[in-house]
Amino acid sequence: MRHPLTRESMVDQLPPRLSVLRLGHRRDRDKRITSHLGLTARAFGADEVVLSGEEDPSALETWDSVTERFGGPFTSRYEPKPMPWLRSVSKKESATIVHLTMYGQPWRETVSSIPKDKPVIVVVGGTKVPGEVFQISNYNVSVVNQPHSEVSALAVFLHSFVGPLDGKESFEDAKMKIIPSEKGKIVINQEEE
Amino acid sequence: MRHPLTRESMVDQLPPRLSVLRLGHRRDRDKRITSHLGLTARAFGADEVVLSGEEDPSALETWDSVTERFGGPFTSRYEPKPMPWLRSVSKKESATIVHLTMYGQPWRETVSSIPKDKPVIVVVGGTKVPGEVFQISNYNVSVVNQPHSEVSALAVFLHSFVGPLDGKESFEDAKMKIIPSEKGKIVINQEEE
Repeated sequence: MRHPLTRESMVDQLPPRLSVLRLGHRRDRDKRITSHLGLTARAFGADEVVLSGEEDPSALETWDSVTERFGGPFTSRYEPKPMPWLRSVSKKESATIVHLTMYGQPWRETVSSIPKDKPVIVVVGGTKVPGEVFQISNYNVSVVNQPHSEVSALAVFLHSFVGPLDGKESFEDAKMKIIPSEKGKIVINQEEE
Repeated sequence: MRHPLTRESMVDQLPPRLSVLRLGHRRDRDKRITSHLGLTARAFGADEVVLSGEEDPSALETWDSVTERFGGPFTSRYEPKPMPWLRSVSKKESATIVHLTMYGQPWRETVSSIPKDKPVIVVVGGTKVPGEVFQISNYNVSVVNQPHSEVSALAVFLHSFVGPLDGKESFEDAKMKIIPSEKGKIVINQEEE
């Protein structure tokens, strides 16, 4: 979880890592949803997005490019074998696995019981989520028990779990910054300085 | 805004209408994002989604099909001329226009000042939003001044503006209901009764 720490102090005091795992990505059909999902992970305070399913360098490039311009820290990587990773995490209890699914338990009742002192992996499914994910997860969490979007679910969950991230301190080393405005677009671009 | 009223009492006591207008839809490129946007509108308490840009009956079919199965009231329609509609609304002050944009003012400071006693149109842009939208809107609102997703922005904004909608009373005439579950999928299907 992103804290208002400088890079120097983070070395000594790293907060537990918050990862978002995208299961079952399909390069053609899911391109934009997956892209929005990773950007949502970054904007709402995750430390990394992990892509699985079909390999897709363009998704990672999009995420890295936004981080390069608008700040981080935020990383992305491809995980060819997400289930063995989750099984290992589950066995070692090295992170809390939170699966977002419309079939799960209401997030407003669940979020406060998720521990904040160890790493969290938020698992976001695609069309076909293996039944094992429901079993292996410490929490199956729904954001409204209605069909809508994994992007919405992730945003509302992270906003609720991480808390507000509007502060200037939330994104470090940004070359571009958007300044809130009543009627227009104000972007400070330090790329050319 | 969806209230826990029966259909009968709603006739006498209709709450102000909450619409979501999707600007600039492109049938191929935006298909799934727009679909998720409309489903998010429904799941988080809007009364209707209005599609503009390229006409796309499949989007309306998706939304109507979910409403048919999971309950409403929720309607969808195509608006070929969104700007004349917004101009007319703005001139007559017949609804509050809220434009979601990453360039706008922070939602947490803005939401509480949006009146709840008249209709609201939430405008969600695509790639190229006409500058006029920024001028014509009563509120330009950002959900985190960072690039992420119009789907995320809509979900977090509506959740904040409408409030929680997990109650059973939120969706009427549902044939299918999802029952929150710790480890599996529980769906009550009354379609075949």
